[in-house]
Amino acid sequence: MTQSGTTEATTKFNAAPLVADCHALARRYRRIRSFTESLCKPLVTEDYVVQTMPDVSPTKWHLAHSTWFFEALVLAKADKGYSWWQEQYKYLFNSYYNSIGPHFDRPRRGVLSRPTVEDIFNYREEIDARLVELLNRIDSASPLLPVITLGLHHEMQHQELLLTDIKHVFASNPLRPIYCEQLSRATTTQLPLNWKAYDAGLVRVGYAGSGFAHDNELPNHQVFVPPFSLATRLVTNGEYLSFILDRGYERPELWLSDGWVAKTSQNWTAPLYWQQQGDQWQYMTLGGLRGVDASAPVCHVSFYEADAYARWARFKIPREEAWELAASDLSIEGNFAESGNYHPVPAKEQTGPDALCQMFGDLWEWTSSPYVDYPGYQPPSGPLGEYNAKFMCNQMVLRGGSCATPQSHIRPTYRNFFPPDTRWQFSGIRLANPL
Amino acid sequence: MTQSGTTEATTKFNAAPLVADCHALARRYRRIRSFTESLCKPLVTEDYVVQTMPDVSPTKWHLAHSTWFFEALVLAKADKGYSWWQEQYKYLFNSYYNSIGPHFDRPRRGVLSRPTVEDIFNYREEIDARLVELLNRIDSASPLLPVITLGLHHEMQHQELLLTDIKHVFASNPLRPIYCEQLSRATTTQLPLNWKAYDAGLVRVGYAGSGFAHDNELPNHQVFVPPFSLATRLVTNGEYLSFILDRGYERPELWLSDGWVAKTSQNWTAPLYWQQQGDQWQYMTLGGLRGVDASAPVCHVSFYEADAYARWARFKIPREEAWELAASDLSIEGNFAESGNYHPVPAKEQTGPDALCQMFGDLWEWTSSPYVDYPGYQPPSGPLGEYNAKFMCNQMVLRGGSCATPQSHIRPTYRNFFPPDTRWQFSGIRLANPL
Amino acid sequence: MTQSGTTEATTKFNAAPLVADCHALARRYRRIRSFTESLCKPLVTEDYVVQTMPDVSPTKWHLAHSTWFFEALVLAKADKGYSWWQEQYKYLFNSYYNSIGPHFDRPRRGVLSRPTVEDIFNYREEIDARLVELLNRIDSASPLLPVITLGLHHEMQHQELLLTDIKHVFASNPLRPIYCEQLSRATTTQLPLNWKAYDAGLVRVGYAGSGFAHDNELPNHQVFVPPFSLATRLVTNGEYLSFILDRGYERPELWLSDGWVAKTSQNWTAPLYWQQQGDQWQYMTLGGLRGVDASAPVCHVSFYEADAYARWARFKIPREEAWELAASDLSIEGNFAESGNYHPVPAKEQTGPDALCQMFGDLWEWTSSPYVDYPGYQPPSGPLGEYNAKFMCNQMVLRGGSCATPQSHIRPTYRNFFPPDTRWQFSGIRLANPL
Amino acid sequence: MTQSGTTEATTKFNAAPLVADCHALARRYRRIRSFTESLCKPLVTEDYVVQTMPDVSPTKWHLAHSTWFFEALVLAKADKGYSWWQEQYKYLFNSYYNSIGPHFDRPRRGVLSRPTVEDIFNYREEIDARLVELLNRIDSASPLLPVITLGLHHEMQHQELLLTDIKHVFASNPLRPIYCEQLSRATTTQLPLNWKAYDAGLVRVGYAGSGFAHDNELPNHQVFVPPFSLATRLVTNGEYLSFILDRGYERPELWLSDGWVAKTSQNWTAPLYWQQQGDQWQYMTLGGLRGVDASAPVCHVSFYEADAYARWARFKIPREEAWELAASDLSIEGNFAESGNYHPVPAKEQTGPDALCQMFGDLWEWTSSPYVDYPGYQPPSGPLGEYNAKFMCNQMVLRGGSCATPQSHIRPTYRNFFPPDTRWQFSGIRLANPL
Repeated sequence: MTQSGTTEATTKFNAAPLVADCHALARRYRRIRSFTESLCKPLVTEDYVVQTMPDVSPTKWHLAHSTWFFEALVLAKADKGYSWWQEQYKYLFNSYYNSIGPHFDRPRRGVLSRPTVEDIFNYREEIDARLVELLNRIDSASPLLPVITLGLHHEMQHQELLLTDIKHVFASNPLRPIYCEQLSRATTTQLPLNWKAYDAGLVRVGYAGSGFAHDNELPNHQVFVPPFSLATRLVTNGEYLSFILDRGYERPELWLSDGWVAKTSQNWTAPLYWQQQGDQWQYMTLGGLRGVDASAPVCHVSFYEADAYARWARFKIPREEAWELAASDLSIEGNFAESGNYHPVPAKEQTGPDALCQMFGDLWEWTSSPYVDYPGYQPPSGPLGEYNAKFMCNQMVLRGGSCATPQSHIRPTYRNFFPPDTRWQFSGIRLANPL
Repeated sequence: MTQSGTTEATTKFNAAPLVADCHALARRYRRIRSFTESLCKPLVTEDYVVQTMPDVSPTKWHLAHSTWFFEALVLAKADKGYSWWQEQYKYLFNSYYNSIGPHFDRPRRGVLSRPTVEDIFNYREEIDARLVELLNRIDSASPLLPVITLGLHHEMQHQELLLTDIKHVFASNPLRPIYCEQLSRATTTQLPLNWKAYDAGLVRVGYAGSGFAHDNELPNHQVFVPPFSLATRLVTNGEYLSFILDRGYERPELWLSDGWVAKTSQNWTAPLYWQQQGDQWQYMTLGGLRGVDASAPVCHVSFYEADAYARWARFKIPREEAWELAASDLSIEGNFAESGNYHPVPAKEQTGPDALCQMFGDLWEWTSSPYVDYPGYQPPSGPLGEYNAKFMCNQMVLRGGSCATPQSHIRPTYRNFFPPDTRWQFSGIRLANPL
Repeated sequence: MTQSGTTEATTKFNAAPLVADCHALARRYRRIRSFTESLCKPLVTEDYVVQTMPDVSPTKWHLAHSTWFFEALVLAKADKGYSWWQEQYKYLFNSYYNSIGPHFDRPRRGVLSRPTVEDIFNYREEIDARLVELLNRIDSASPLLPVITLGLHHEMQHQELLLTDIKHVFASNPLRPIYCEQLSRATTTQLPLNWKAYDAGLVRVGYAGSGFAHDNELPNHQVFVPPFSLATRLVTNGEYLSFILDRGYERPELWLSDGWVAKTSQNWTAPLYWQQQGDQWQYMTLGGLRGVDASAPVCHVSFYEADAYARWARFKIPREEAWELAASDLSIEGNFAESGNYHPVPAKEQTGPDALCQMFGDLWEWTSSPYVDYPGYQPPSGPLGEYNAKFMCNQMVLRGGSCATPQSHIRPTYRNFFPPDTRWQFSGIRLANPL
Repeated sequence: MTQSGTTEATTKFNAAPLVADCHALARRYRRIRSFTESLCKPLVTEDYVVQTMPDVSPTKWHLAHSTWFFEALVLAKADKGYSWWQEQYKYLFNSYYNSIGPHFDRPRRGVLSRPTVEDIFNYREEIDARLVELLNRIDSASPLLPVITLGLHHEMQHQELLLTDIKHVFASNPLRPIYCEQLSRATTTQLPLNWKAYDAGLVRVGYAGSGFAHDNELPNHQVFVPPFSLATRLVTNGEYLSFILDRGYERPELWLSDGWVAKTSQNWTAPLYWQQQGDQWQYMTLGGLRGVDASAPVCHVSFYEADAYARWARFKIPREEAWELAASDLSIEGNFAESGNYHPVPAKEQTGPDALCQMFGDLWEWTSSPYVDYPGYQPPSGPLGEYNAKFMCNQMVLRGGSCATPQSHIRPTYRNFFPPDTRWQFSGIRLANPL
């Protein structure tokens, strides 16, 4: 976790503090932490408690765990004789860091009525005070700064998870609670599906800048990319409905073997949160139950569904290096969490026919790349080595961020990852066409 | 389903209204309903939401379901065009009455953050008002009165379940929350284990009075009971510890075959809620974590453990008719929910050496009688037929009520029933000795 | 049981040897053992190996385990320094006798290709020789004789299990192998369903003779039986089809709660081995796939189905003491294993309108009595105490024997027992009508 | 794949028949088919029937399914009105080809006692006759020839599976049957672990010859390979024991997260088939139970164990393209199935210090490459498209063949694949060292 002019083969979870000095970092800390709290505004106390499936965490757990991160990995490391705010929180809000100690069983997070929501807001307040106090007494060369910076990116990841999880909580409830009002949108016309072509070539992949990046984006390295073209927009609900109507969920020849097993055992007949009302399809959104918008991108599909759709459409899902190559010179603009919409929107007219849209924001885009380490990758030592490295198996890479991702969290080199049957994230499909 | 001079073979879920007239019933209604609410006083909002295992229901579910009972089985039956307070509650808070309609999946009760606790207290208030208004306009011959009376006994059952469930919720939490302060008690001496003998004879079993009784206590009928003697008190923690120390949990010859499987697969090494701290045993109570009191009755054991203990002690578990014979002339006094202690207490000195103590209150006593219908039993028609009858398989009868049972809820003929591996109820052991 | 000076409360698993002396016992031994082997005649080597579900054992396991019984419980007890024929068989072919030692995991019996079928026939031959040799050198007062007698009844139980298990093996095979030719029968007319009435009374139940009986039939004791009448024949396929056509499998109000769960999770829509071919129903028999015979008794139903059928028909399933009372003065005649038919046959015209038929043989008849110990029951000490006693929970009693039971195995007091969801045994339904 | 004017993006499952003409193919057909049968020589009938876990198939199923391949994909395609030898075999012995029709449930293969072993040998004989007859009447341009060639490679895959599966069957049996006598070997000294270094470069990967190759080895394409060095031999049992002794199975920081879950839930404490006898380790081999040979390569480890070992040793598992680059100029020699040893042997002295040994034969070598399609890959149309393509998810690539692989089956470009928790294959570990 050094920095400095390291060579390509040296991996570090970040390359530089997010901001130049401790005061700026403290300001950023407060801004990001309070954004988390603002996301809780629409919730009542009961909403913070519930866990609807093992992958989902209660809101209050997110609030506590992201705080735990600063306590366990910053405050407790900074002071020899550090005294935990509540000794038991060390165990209760550890997610999976074996090097820090045992942790409460993940699928049981929803059985804890205590600590209360109020207790946890108090916890946040207390740790925030301690953290800012710490920032006042260390200098910007302190090795704690990169960890605090990482903690803020960790906080942003949990902002997104908080949203995806509360959506699952609300969608599991027959009362269909509403999290937020969404802009009612005039029906838009669907943009035509165009393609942008790329030549084969030896390119560099992975983070090479001087800002923050996760360890799994490193080291920057060479890859040979064969020629391909990339769809200029995401697959829409309307297009995906054609796949459903063409019996896409009933034809094993369109599916990976494991995908067919997942589909069958979990009774998938449409994306997650879809339901049929007579002839009409509706879906649950954070704005409540709504009619499916044909021109909006299809969302809450697993990699298996993305792959089956691509096979049906006679295209492919892109590899992550192709996606990164295409994204590398785009500006990071799009429909992010800051919009407060929390739902993907239809692609808008672009300047040229092969201009890529929706690359950032709207939906995480499944790639056909299994999540593995880059050549020369070395995980950080200690607990931070558990952040990303131990998950490099049985997962697929997703790129680009979503409507639930904070804008400043994303980079062209950012690698998100989930198992191929995951559906509760804001995940969608962009097609590729090998040339 | 009223009474009248029915013959023995006619079964009815109750034999007479609990009280003589509507006004008295309304008063009783308010008293029982508000006792339920008083049990919630120690809880914070988060505590109402959590479900720690499929058998446990969230507190707010208990509050809503016992209200639903009056709405679905009284109000909605009373008025042709009855309009539900909330249409979806009909489905959400139905427990298992197929004749009323589909119900929300039981093991998923804990995923519902809404309706909120406040919504549900409002629901109670509204239905209470409607019910009292109904009682004002019907007369005491109305067939609704027995159903309302049943509803109050149903409410009392859920008062007990609310307590057993919140105990499970608190005991599942490493923070060990405390529900109530309990009297600190001076250590008492354990009474000697005496026996009271009974001759063989043809006796009558089942309810024969003119008050309320559940359908499963009917009809009153003849049974031949062989000679037996009954222990004058419950098995104590101290005695049960001897069983543990004698490797009772490690010797298959002491166990029923299914019991051994349950013990092994669920890793039982002591009663539920016990934990070893060095050489000392502690247990979780509604008053928090406490040292095991050797002279208090052993609690939270399954029928399998009761049966293994009895085999080890070279005695038997009594049959329900023997228990009922012994209880039939005792007054219904003991350590009930009204004591606010919610924990069993040691047996106290009695008038004579073979006086039975702890027969009512303290702990439900496992019998060795599988729960089946009495000869000539006919379940009520309609939804009330689902109240008891369909559970008459794979369960064992328990008798006598517990420290979590309201006193006015219990009778000598009262039959509680649970599967033989059940441990989260306040269940204990009384030995019998066949002669 | 009474006799031989003992008091009622003294239980033992048998009261007298099946035959008067060792020579007669040796002859009986050879006869019963070779009947087992004759049941294997229709099998090819592969058929002996397969286990189609945990309850089913491979044929070769039955052959070995019933031999193990004589080796473990007779030969090894008879001689201090007894040397096992194969040391590992002690472990491999122990079923569940913890007091003898560990046993190979039951659901894994079908993974053992070795010992071979030939090895096991050699095992039988060797143990038979040793056993007969033993009988030559002990006298008829030896305590081993009752154990040998029990071993022969154990052998007969496994003769029946061998047949029920091979039926399951063949029915699991799409090639539908045939075990035996059955008599083709002219279609018979269904006898009318008549009732035989019995008065209430205090009766004696349990074995009271001087021959062999299982410990669970003891002691003979008094029971008060309320008035009842019993159907003169078993429920037929034709009658059961009416239940199916009346949507009996789709109406939860007809089912016990646990029965509905079993039905739903196991997808029952008809008795086991039934399949619909267009409009016609067929079932698998040991004579292959055949059309359902409307006048033959319905077979391979669980207790849950028997109970649901009885509720639909507005009758009851009889208690075991009522059945025993009715059977006590009947001669033990019927359609047993010796007929070589291995399938129930329609009831035949009787001498009088209320003469009971099919009480013995044809099908085991579910009773509504949970399998518990009789008052005063004491299990034998040592391994034989594990034979019956530890299963006295969560099972229902069946009476009367079946077409797969050897005739000399059955008695009016005989208590078979299986969990209420069991279907692969030859089990049927006789109705009762409480008066 | 050849090229032959085609572009790189054109994929086909094979590029040329294995042999030049039909007569030669018929000879090869007979040779390969009879090798399968020769592998069955040590078996008794019972051994053919048993399935010890879902991944294992009974020997007789392998014999039948590899025959089914020729009937379903060659004979039935060759003649319009083809009549199956046994109509039901089409269903019974289909493995997973949805485009051919439904198939018998894989985990239930072991419940089928029929068809008998003899039936299946007859089936083989009949189909062999039909196939050779077919080869007599078609010419070498027939499109059936490549399918027959594929069928022979398929047969060789099942030769290996037959061996791995019978090993699992024998190892599951406490009697520890022996499949074959193995040469007793003098203890050899372990070769030092040397490294062979490779420069970075843009290389071609995938089959480019004119013989047979599987579709998943195509197309030949460019990949950039960073610099690396490869261990000159496999990891030995002795080295792996050091990992065990260093508590490798107890330290979560050494494991992938999914690996730790697999290890824990499956109770791994050593490679599959290892058992501790006092201080000594033994393992089950096809030659029976033997002491662990410290200088022989460690075998029957999952990818998770390989990866944990590499992390512990501070090395990496190589990517498949690195392995292929290193193997591309080696001759295909090693310890293959033809040796009749069926067990890996210690590495032997090589000509130079960085000469690679054990690259072919001995053990399949885990790579750290998830099994995905090569750029430009197109699966064959029809059933052969199901052969490889649908499994390209959640599996890892293995390279080099094993002691159970027929020598003529393997190529430097050959890609085997199994899920990362697989242990019953002959799989081992070769380390890599990124430079």
